[in-house]
Amino acid sequence: MLYLVHMQVQIPADADRALTDRLKAEEKAFSQKLQHEGKWRHLWRVAGQYANYSVFDVESNDELHTLLSSLPLYPYMSVNVTPLAQHPSAIAPN
Amino acid sequence: MLYLVHMQVQIPADADRALTDRLKAEEKAFSQKLQHEGKWRHLWRVAGQYANYSVFDVESNDELHTLLSSLPLYPYMSVNVTPLAQHPSAIAPN
Amino acid sequence: MLYLVHMQVQIPADADRALTDRLKAEEKAFSQKLQHEGKWRHLWRVAGQYANYSVFDVESNDELHTLLSSLPLYPYMSVNVTPLAQHPSAIAPN
Amino acid sequence: MLYLVHMQVQIPADADRALTDRLKAEEKAFSQKLQHEGKWRHLWRVAGQYANYSVFDVESNDELHTLLSSLPLYPYMSVNVTPLAQHPSAIAPN
Amino acid sequence: MLYLVHMQVQIPADADRALTDRLKAEEKAFSQKLQHEGKWRHLWRVAGQYANYSVFDVESNDELHTLLSSLPLYPYMSVNVTPLAQHPSAIAPN
Amino acid sequence: MLYLVHMQVQIPADADRALTDRLKAEEKAFSQKLQHEGKWRHLWRVAGQYANYSVFDVESNDELHTLLSSLPLYPYMSVNVTPLAQHPSAIAPN
Amino acid sequence: MLYLVHMQVQIPADADRALTDRLKAEEKAFSQKLQHEGKWRHLWRVAGQYANYSVFDVESNDELHTLLSSLPLYPYMSVNVTPLAQHPSAIAPN
Amino acid sequence: MLYLVHMQVQIPADADRALTDRLKAEEKAFSQKLQHEGKWRHLWRVAGQYANYSVFDVESNDELHTLLSSLPLYPYMSVNVTPLAQHPSAIAPN
Amino acid sequence: MLYLVHMQVQIPADADRALTDRLKAEEKAFSQKLQHEGKWRHLWRVAGQYANYSVFDVESNDELHTLLSSLPLYPYMSVNVTPLAQHPSAIAPN
Amino acid sequence: MLYLVHMQVQIPADADRALTDRLKAEEKAFSQKLQHEGKWRHLWRVAGQYANYSVFDVESNDELHTLLSSLPLYPYMSVNVTPLAQHPSAIAPN
Repeated sequence: MLYLVHMQVQIPADADRALTDRLKAEEKAFSQKLQHEGKWRHLWRVAGQYANYSVFDVESNDELHTLLSSLPLYPYMSVNVTPLAQHPSAIAPN
Repeated sequence: MLYLVHMQVQIPADADRALTDRLKAEEKAFSQKLQHEGKWRHLWRVAGQYANYSVFDVESNDELHTLLSSLPLYPYMSVNVTPLAQHPSAIAPN
Repeated sequence: MLYLVHMQVQIPADADRALTDRLKAEEKAFSQKLQHEGKWRHLWRVAGQYANYSVFDVESNDELHTLLSSLPLYPYMSVNVTPLAQHPSAIAPN
Repeated sequence: MLYLVHMQVQIPADADRALTDRLKAEEKAFSQKLQHEGKWRHLWRVAGQYANYSVFDVESNDELHTLLSSLPLYPYMSVNVTPLAQHPSAIAPN
Repeated sequence: MLYLVHMQVQIPADADRALTDRLKAEEKAFSQKLQHEGKWRHLWRVAGQYANYSVFDVESNDELHTLLSSLPLYPYMSVNVTPLAQHPSAIAPN
Repeated sequence: MLYLVHMQVQIPADADRALTDRLKAEEKAFSQKLQHEGKWRHLWRVAGQYANYSVFDVESNDELHTLLSSLPLYPYMSVNVTPLAQHPSAIAPN
Repeated sequence: MLYLVHMQVQIPADADRALTDRLKAEEKAFSQKLQHEGKWRHLWRVAGQYANYSVFDVESNDELHTLLSSLPLYPYMSVNVTPLAQHPSAIAPN
Repeated sequence: MLYLVHMQVQIPADADRALTDRLKAEEKAFSQKLQHEGKWRHLWRVAGQYANYSVFDVESNDELHTLLSSLPLYPYMSVNVTPLAQHPSAIAPN
Repeated sequence: MLYLVHMQVQIPADADRALTDRLKAEEKAFSQKLQHEGKWRHLWRVAGQYANYSVFDVESNDELHTLLSSLPLYPYMSVNVTPLAQHPSAIAPN
Repeated sequence: MLYLVHMQVQIPADADRALTDRLKAEEKAFSQKLQHEGKWRHLWRVAGQYANYSVFDVESNDELHTLLSSLPLYPYMSVNVTPLAQHPSAIAPN
């Protein structure tokens, strides 16, 4: 089941650099693990912004929330979720 | 080159039914042709709305505009375009 | 799986009264059938508005979209969907 | 009498961790007490956000305000209230 | 129990004049009846707009909705409701 | 002459508690003095928010601004003013 | 007493041309009468829009509303009013 | 003197086709005349929308308004104007 | 050439009081100098807000920007500029 | 390929002055290098704001993002990108 997820990251200018560097590295590792598992199906950078549009493929709203709220940078993110359904003109199933 | 495209369709209640039925059929055919060519890479229905989120893979802003403005339902659409770039954590190229 | 759904109805002043009366009756019947089936779990009127907040309990985004887009008044509605997850402080499962 | 309540929590990054952990524990206990009393009828997590949608069942606007402003995390919340009425198509009373 | 109600009226330019004149007269009569009963406690014109801010004093959300949706001009109104509570600095009860 | 005034208070989490407690006490005293004088005609809490809707009865825009900008909590407030006029259907003068 | 007034005019494409031409002529005459009387103190076109910013100098909110709602084009206008007070750095009284 | 101008065109579905075709042709001719004169310095299509961003180089706000309000499609446009100044890092004068 | 300028001032609660007092005094002096020169033609307080609406009369967008960005409180301001043109119904030139 | 880019800069009042002065100097140098290379085709100051509208001429969304995210002041910017296409009435190619 697919969801479009919009994540905007806002790290305060006075945040501890060592901490945020570590979080970013953990975020990247976690994100790539989920991509390899097929749960984080797409990950695109929004041109010109510290933001991404992603597509998640999960079993349920609960699984989606569990994954998103586990992101290391989650406390610095503003997240918006759009549930996606099969489009009748799509040539492939979701 | 990828773009996230948000299309919202608004057909007036008093529109000519035969006309809009024809346009919808043409829209579907055109959309599927572009999907088969790989230019309209993803097409998802927004759950609960007469709207879709799509990802286009085209050569340029000009090609994108040419395709979108050729859509049979374009006069009834509100379209928003977000240019996408390669995300450094993505495991696959765009 | 639960979704909060916000439906705002806007019937044009010049709409055919007989048609919209029939649609409203069909909407009520369909809505009550879904409530009896447990799929439309809650239905509340927003005080002072021709709008409701509802909670749907369905298997998937696709089932949700199928139900919503089948509503007789769907062409006159503006619909917004918020996917809900289990809250860690809730004393009952969703 | 029912109200839909939307609570968004924003705890500053530099907040005292011990304090906010204590407030969160108190919030959970208070929330569960109100749920057991039937005043906080529903509590759902918004998927992907530190936010919830809740339904309160109270005697009056005053009781609602008293409860909400007593929440331990209230100073960190942005709260929005929508008064709900009986929907004519609902199969059960509110 | 008090509610602040914001009503904005929008009558289409091509509406039937005889009909809307009748509705306006009925609206005035109904509004004055409710004011005399003490249910429509205040009624103020927003300077420069076909809109009012009102304060209703009713038993419940349901009574409020019943009154508002009975207004003759209701189909032409955009209505917004804010539930009011006792302010701790107010020198008089609500 | 009446004005609807919407005041939203936002006191930063790290504000000096002694200072803000003193300001709140002064605010209450000043507010009650103005209510007794008839200038602050109504004061209602917005349910669920650190905000109020008030009605002021003053001689002029200048008097209104002088009063509002003298509020002890004014530096922490976001204030919005709506000038009110006599409504033709009101049964009492403003 | 001064008010900044923002007027945006929207005449439907299918409006009766003879009628709107007459209303525009009446609007101009009425506006110039009020300017000569000193009540409509300033009238400026917003560059690129069928809109103006104006400053009215009137006795009260009521007089302002009476004037604005008497404008021949009022039914086609969206009007916003900002009450103005004396600025402490202004070198002239309002 | 430069201005960024955003024009969004909205032609109603039931507009007279012959009329709008004529207006579009006149719009194109007028636009190209102004471009050749150097007053309409840039004209870009917003990808995916019936809209453009333009840069005008004119003597004054008045000249800008005269030009924009003379556009044949002006009655169907929503126009927004941003006055531009010389940027201190620009390598060329405006 | 006239511009309507909206200035909203937001001085952080923890700003250095001596510094901001000095800036406010300088702002007042600079503002009055520009008013005497005729460049800052009008200056009005928005009732209930730390904000003003002003009208500037300058030669160009560049002069306007130079003046505004020279304001001592400019770093604490949110500024919005609306270019004004001669209104055809105005009885006096701009 | 052209993009309209809107950059708004917000430097916190308590930022380290030496650091931000250095960043501003680097920003200017980098910006002028890109202008000389033809990639940053236009750079205009928004009158009255610490903001600019720019036009970039680059090969792709990726190149655009690489350039923008390399700006020394990027962490202090809010950036918005609008992809531009050839306008059919433009007398010159993009």
